[in-house]
Amino acid sequence: MQTEFQQSYGLVVGATQGIGLGFVKRMLQEAAIATIFATYRTREAAGELLTLAEQYPERLICTALDITQEDQIAQLPEMIQTQTQQLHWVINCVGVLHDGHLQPEKSLQQLKTDQLLHYFQVNSISAALLARFLFPLLKHKDRSIFAHISAKVGSIGDNQLGGWYGYRASKAALNMFIKTAALEYSRKSPNTILALLHPGTTDTRLSAPFQRNVPPEKLFSIERTVEQLWTVLGDLEPQDSGQFFSWDGTSLPW
Amino acid sequence: MQTEFQQSYGLVVGATQGIGLGFVKRMLQEAAIATIFATYRTREAAGELLTLAEQYPERLICTALDITQEDQIAQLPEMIQTQTQQLHWVINCVGVLHDGHLQPEKSLQQLKTDQLLHYFQVNSISAALLARFLFPLLKHKDRSIFAHISAKVGSIGDNQLGGWYGYRASKAALNMFIKTAALEYSRKSPNTILALLHPGTTDTRLSAPFQRNVPPEKLFSIERTVEQLWTVLGDLEPQDSGQFFSWDGTSLPW
Repeated sequence: MQTEFQQSYGLVVGATQGIGLGFVKRMLQEAAIATIFATYRTREAAGELLTLAEQYPERLICTALDITQEDQIAQLPEMIQTQTQQLHWVINCVGVLHDGHLQPEKSLQQLKTDQLLHYFQVNSISAALLARFLFPLLKHKDRSIFAHISAKVGSIGDNQLGGWYGYRASKAALNMFIKTAALEYSRKSPNTILALLHPGTTDTRLSAPFQRNVPPEKLFSIERTVEQLWTVLGDLEPQDSGQFFSWDGTSLPW
Repeated sequence: MQTEFQQSYGLVVGATQGIGLGFVKRMLQEAAIATIFATYRTREAAGELLTLAEQYPERLICTALDITQEDQIAQLPEMIQTQTQQLHWVINCVGVLHDGHLQPEKSLQQLKTDQLLHYFQVNSISAALLARFLFPLLKHKDRSIFAHISAKVGSIGDNQLGGWYGYRASKAALNMFIKTAALEYSRKSPNTILALLHPGTTDTRLSAPFQRNVPPEKLFSIERTVEQLWTVLGDLEPQDSGQFFSWDGTSLPW
């Protein structure tokens, strides 16, 4: 797939750890990807990413980005455009399930407006704003991939357990935003393929409190998840844009 | 259907005008419904509803409710409990598509964080909070219906036109919230049936700016829409809870 491009450029949003950091490492293995841009929320938490950037000073460029700040997302293209006018691989790995006081709701009783708004802002709105502001970098004559980490628990049709109100609703909203953005891109930038990805349960900080009930063979290492998703992305065709794929390439219900 | 109850009680949230006001009028025709509670956002806009309440002082009780204020939703049951401990018909008609400066986005270029958050707060979170706080009034031995006006443009699978990012995503989130709430109610209050309804394009303030492209036979009067939805609700069985129905009773894709 990468042989299509002489030199291509990647961006990983939310690259501090977990699947995002895994995608940075995976892209570094691709000689065709000249430069990888990677965003982190706070410098303090981004130690491993920043160490990696010291090892690849020519290929990995890291920058702080608080995804809840629209003006920071708006300024991201400017930073990237100092190096390139085109992106070919954008992977949005931003997402929150739990974070200190923020815990997924087990029942209606635990619903709180502020927490729900925070889920939407981090898990849904950020992706829509990325679709808005990265458009000029993705619209070009070559194939470009714009993938978002969603989650099967964001499938309304698949929901049989309940709970996790805010996380589920914010992922359903993410899915709608990206499906809608894919329709707009298909008219204005037909070589860009937008995708929603279910990574499977992966051994990350996000899933750590919930791994108890996951059989070992269903708990993927980060490397395995990234490799599986990389394969899915490599196989995508323009007509797949706006769809929701599981880690094995199968389609998921909305 | 109404003969099942000696006396039943209804609540319409967002009853100032349009479909909400239509449901109030429809319930007033049902002798089995002893009392109807109706909420409005501002007294100034609720003239027709308040006039109706003067005509039916024994049966229609109106109260102000700003759906963006969690504490006001939390206090709603207390007001209702001065009259009854049980609700049998709850219709949530709250929703915003346009409102002054708030206009549905035609393209990514028009996305703004504040507007997107507002869509989620009014169209999605309010319904989840109603599901939380009305639970004690809906949990009883008789059948109860808890319906939410959703919209076909909130169907991710059906989306072929794009645009209206915030409205679409907030309705998808509403669908997920109510699907998830239905699973919790089915365990804790199995006689409550939650439903998501697509009313069809109805001649209301919400659809007014967009009626140009609607063929006359597809633009329903409020009375027709309410009658159609009332029929759909009357036919619902417990196993229908958490599903998404069109005005003609057919299921809609998520």
